[in-house]
Amino acid sequence: MNRKLVFNYLGKISVASGAFMLVPIICALVFREYNSLFAFLVTAVISVAAGLAVCKFSKPKSNLMYTKEGFAIVALAWVVMSFFGAIPFIITGDLTSLADAFFETVSGYTTTGATILADIEALPKSMLLWRSFTHWVGGMGVIVFVMAILPNISDRSVHIMRAEMPGPMFGKLVPKSRDTAKILYLIYIVMTFTLAIFLLAGGMPLYESLVHAFSTAGTGGFSCNADSILGYSAYIQWVIIVFMILFGVNFNLYYYFLVKRSFAAFKSTELAVYLGIIVAASAAICLNISNLFGTLSEAIRHSAFAVSAIISTTGYATVDFELWPEFSKAILFMLMFIGGCAGSTGGGLKVSRIILLVKLIFSEIRYMLHPRAVTAVRLEGKTVEKSTLNSVSTYFAFFFVCYIVIFIALSIFQPSFGFKENFTAVATCMNNVGPGFGKIGPASSFAEYSTASKVLLSFTMLLGRLEIFPLILTCLPHTWTKD
Amino acid sequence: MNRKLVFNYLGKISVASGAFMLVPIICALVFREYNSLFAFLVTAVISVAAGLAVCKFSKPKSNLMYTKEGFAIVALAWVVMSFFGAIPFIITGDLTSLADAFFETVSGYTTTGATILADIEALPKSMLLWRSFTHWVGGMGVIVFVMAILPNISDRSVHIMRAEMPGPMFGKLVPKSRDTAKILYLIYIVMTFTLAIFLLAGGMPLYESLVHAFSTAGTGGFSCNADSILGYSAYIQWVIIVFMILFGVNFNLYYYFLVKRSFAAFKSTELAVYLGIIVAASAAICLNISNLFGTLSEAIRHSAFAVSAIISTTGYATVDFELWPEFSKAILFMLMFIGGCAGSTGGGLKVSRIILLVKLIFSEIRYMLHPRAVTAVRLEGKTVEKSTLNSVSTYFAFFFVCYIVIFIALSIFQPSFGFKENFTAVATCMNNVGPGFGKIGPASSFAEYSTASKVLLSFTMLLGRLEIFPLILTCLPHTWTKD
Repeated sequence: MNRKLVFNYLGKISVASGAFMLVPIICALVFREYNSLFAFLVTAVISVAAGLAVCKFSKPKSNLMYTKEGFAIVALAWVVMSFFGAIPFIITGDLTSLADAFFETVSGYTTTGATILADIEALPKSMLLWRSFTHWVGGMGVIVFVMAILPNISDRSVHIMRAEMPGPMFGKLVPKSRDTAKILYLIYIVMTFTLAIFLLAGGMPLYESLVHAFSTAGTGGFSCNADSILGYSAYIQWVIIVFMILFGVNFNLYYYFLVKRSFAAFKSTELAVYLGIIVAASAAICLNISNLFGTLSEAIRHSAFAVSAIISTTGYATVDFELWPEFSKAILFMLMFIGGCAGSTGGGLKVSRIILLVKLIFSEIRYMLHPRAVTAVRLEGKTVEKSTLNSVSTYFAFFFVCYIVIFIALSIFQPSFGFKENFTAVATCMNNVGPGFGKIGPASSFAEYSTASKVLLSFTMLLGRLEIFPLILTCLPHTWTKD
Repeated sequence: MNRKLVFNYLGKISVASGAFMLVPIICALVFREYNSLFAFLVTAVISVAAGLAVCKFSKPKSNLMYTKEGFAIVALAWVVMSFFGAIPFIITGDLTSLADAFFETVSGYTTTGATILADIEALPKSMLLWRSFTHWVGGMGVIVFVMAILPNISDRSVHIMRAEMPGPMFGKLVPKSRDTAKILYLIYIVMTFTLAIFLLAGGMPLYESLVHAFSTAGTGGFSCNADSILGYSAYIQWVIIVFMILFGVNFNLYYYFLVKRSFAAFKSTELAVYLGIIVAASAAICLNISNLFGTLSEAIRHSAFAVSAIISTTGYATVDFELWPEFSKAILFMLMFIGGCAGSTGGGLKVSRIILLVKLIFSEIRYMLHPRAVTAVRLEGKTVEKSTLNSVSTYFAFFFVCYIVIFIALSIFQPSFGFKENFTAVATCMNNVGPGFGKIGPASSFAEYSTASKVLLSFTMLLGRLEIFPLILTCLPHTWTKD
């Protein structure tokens, strides 16, 4: 283990954490929220200073990096960022418990959007913008961001990107990781501002447009309103539906379209399945809930909204789906696990993993019927390597092993909540969605959870966002032995 | 597809279904239940006659059999048996709906033990014995039974045993499938009668001893009492605990012990993990519920009982665990999925599959850290073949895909039940356990479920017992094409 390299990266991340606070600092200046301004300034100074100090004292002798260094950097970076990001909430006194502040920040960076705030609108505007901005940063990946802007990045840093980018297969767009990171962020920024302009055009004030553009882009789900997206016009709700779906698409497709001006990328199987699921699920739910709304167009809009919000793992709400029939809720529960496409800002298991699992099942059936036939699993026109297939099925198993362990632990920490709440809390946190069912539904919050439960669920959100392995490997002593 | 061979087997199974009714017929004679006697006699005659007719008209030209024939025989045989087994309930009028009678019989043969009877004790004694006897027959496998007693069985019949015997790996004890079947049934009969003698020794009447011996041996869970095992002495409860655990062990171990007089078989990893889970889970639950009972010994007994009843997928109850804290219930929920050992009469995913999945996860971690190192997964001292590992992880994925589809369908058919009931109903049926949580807990029944739900859950129990593939493959038109 090249420990100095790991710490050096963590120092850089710490500096970046401080730099990110420029955004809420400007907001606090504009709205003259001096209390928040002070909190963000102090935190920014602390994290930049701490980061520079760590960088100074950890000059790595070599830039050599393997999977374990990549995993450790990513896992620890996310903990460090979440810690620094939580400090402003404590300084202003908006949150009094460190567990609450940590939960809220982890929920932000992991783009989960689950909140412990019972009264969102009581927070200063700059604080609410900061919450949404963490979604935006976390969506594309923090370290990807750092790599995009910093010089002197190791050529081996592909190990970091692989650890931070979700999905079963990691495809570099260009030979240098740093260039890939830059391209991805450029597309991301353009799409975010396009969304903000569409929202402004619908009459949403600039501040609210930015908050919702950041949250939607990161597929997070924090809003500045207690009733999320309910209060806005049908136009705005449709704009958000479209952009939630767009941000759940693999960004490589946009690259191929924008840079290579090729429509061929949109013939992707994953995209077709993703859109197919959205249409089918929306139609099924629309039929199921049509009697709850006055007009068909309302039923269509609310079902499309709920489906897009859940499958993209954004977690916004226009209506409280907790009040919908069990069938609609069962579909939404399933969508939580499917999630967005690989290489998008969405969470969940990812559509391509589901496709590969289904293909594996068919290939097993073929193998049973014709044991001697050679069968290969193909996706997007290419044969999928055996090691990738093994990783996908093992990831699936690991996911559920972690799931049940966390569920049992949560039942100890939160005995007052029933099966429905605790079971769906793990689902919504591990898939980075946001709302669960019952007492943690879209109209409620995670405020009632105990401190221990909040810490556990924070860990669960990180586990889901980083796809389990980086966090688990970093906890193994073996990873830290000297080379 | 050798269709004639399939139908020929189904004819034999139909004859066997009729022959099984000798047991309740004797019981009806002893207790002078002439109404039931008539029902069983009529059904026995019908099924034997139908079976002989089918056999006569389907003389296969060849005994050639492949996986698809084996799968089709097993899947259809279980449906045919369940159909014939349901008829007596309808003739006597004890059940008025065919869906109810079918559910109850499928629940019997699949050794699930879920019941739609609100008042069990209202049924005649011979009917209750019949329910338990279906557990006993289904536990070891019906077709294994038919193979053990019939001559002229194809040497290729290993395909049938493989389809009917649960677990990731199928180990033949002796070269001929028929001999294997005989040995397994012999051990099974001896163990069942040993249990009955232990129960008699504890003062349980002969009739009740037989009912409970059959149900325990098949790890089913039907009792002749509304309060299951609650009314019996501590001695009897402990006897049942021990035997539930014993019937959840791979029967191959007993063979090696009894026939080869070797203790080495008991050094099995699967056995160690199985017993380890039972001890750990019982201890955890005992600590969690100790305040609910007057003495520690009571708490130990009830927690050991619940753990053994659930992990062996028997589903008996001494107390209503629905009233226990969430932590205990979460553990029991997890145990439903683990289930018994491969090659036992228990259901669930099987302990050996769980072990292989965990080993796969570790092997994936090793692969990530050292991509070039060659790693093999070993179990019971042998290297596990790649194809077996693929089957295990694919089975796991297939299991959860079916699970979520059935859960969504159940939410349509039973909108009046909440997430807890419908979600755990699928768990308890698919793992062949019996009780679920909430309104379908140990103190309740499946009576409130709609007709469509009962049909769906009957299918779910068959899917779980036959480990998915045989039933799904039989539904594919491709399987039925002429060779």
